[in-house]
Amino acid sequence: MKGKLFIVSGPSGVGKNTILNRVVAGRENVQYSISATSRAKRPGEIDGKSYFFVTREQFEAMLQQGELLEYAEYVGNYYGTPLKPIEQATQAGIDVVMDLDVVGALKIRKRVENAVLVFVAAPSFDVIRQRLIHRGDVAPDVMESRLERARWECEQAGEYDYIIINDSVERATQELMAIMTAEKCKTMERIHIVKEEL
Amino acid sequence: MKGKLFIVSGPSGVGKNTILNRVVAGRENVQYSISATSRAKRPGEIDGKSYFFVTREQFEAMLQQGELLEYAEYVGNYYGTPLKPIEQATQAGIDVVMDLDVVGALKIRKRVENAVLVFVAAPSFDVIRQRLIHRGDVAPDVMESRLERARWECEQAGEYDYIIINDSVERATQELMAIMTAEKCKTMERIHIVKEEL
Repeated sequence: MKGKLFIVSGPSGVGKNTILNRVVAGRENVQYSISATSRAKRPGEIDGKSYFFVTREQFEAMLQQGELLEYAEYVGNYYGTPLKPIEQATQAGIDVVMDLDVVGALKIRKRVENAVLVFVAAPSFDVIRQRLIHRGDVAPDVMESRLERARWECEQAGEYDYIIINDSVERATQELMAIMTAEKCKTMERIHIVKEEL
Repeated sequence: MKGKLFIVSGPSGVGKNTILNRVVAGRENVQYSISATSRAKRPGEIDGKSYFFVTREQFEAMLQQGELLEYAEYVGNYYGTPLKPIEQATQAGIDVVMDLDVVGALKIRKRVENAVLVFVAAPSFDVIRQRLIHRGDVAPDVMESRLERARWECEQAGEYDYIIINDSVERATQELMAIMTAEKCKTMERIHIVKEEL
């Protein structure tokens, strides 16, 4: 049985990475999607694991050859999602998970029809504010712009297939795992097994 | 949050009841739908638990008042699914599960839009045959007609939302539980929570 692509979005600070790390650690046949980037490798980062590190020229060539499902430019560096490793994994029956912003997620949905989009929301918007403040590494105006972005992202949640409210990391993790299991049980994924038996 | 109605179908002998019993025993806020019937109560059966025992006249009155989601007549007795207890439970946040034949399940889908239909299939059709033989309580021609019915039911699996292949009771039970959890995470069920926060 083929794997599926699960894209997880949600406002910064909502706990997406904690949930995804637990799912990848606690479940068989799941792996992260690895992004390509043109930014310089930082100490400790591993090519092909942290990112696929490429030059700007290589990135632009990948883009032109349709090898990227989506991309964006931040602070002069490209970041994008290569299609081929995702195809290889899902063909081999492995689910692929990724943390991606709303704009990127909605772009991918247009190209990968059966991608599953999961939005992680906080129990309240105030929780997002508190978590951003506790990180404490940004000026108030940057904070405001992040909150505005978070608000806009939550407004797009209706475009997603599933919503997880992260009021407990344990429950949120279980819910994402349940979604992944249920998606494999969908009739479209299994009807051929039943038909072959008849 | 409201509960949902989960209807489980599948050929006789496939193990639907074992799976449902485990789900009802192992999960919070789930209960069985209780059928109404006009047949006589047997020793050990409890009214309102095994069935709602009613007279033929009472059953026909329920039918005329639209209180039954579906019904059928077997060997001169009526059997049907009362709507009201399901509505009361789901309004109270309780999921309702039932084992129902394909004809009844597809009838209910027309009236309860968000009912979730799960088909339980055997790992192979030969397994169904073996399980029916092991029960050993029927004549060969009855067996053949049951197998024909099982075959027809499997042909309808494409109408269902999910398919579970019962090659392991543990896994099949986990899959049904995952489906129930994932259905509660669907965007339609939760978008109001995210919208209210904004």
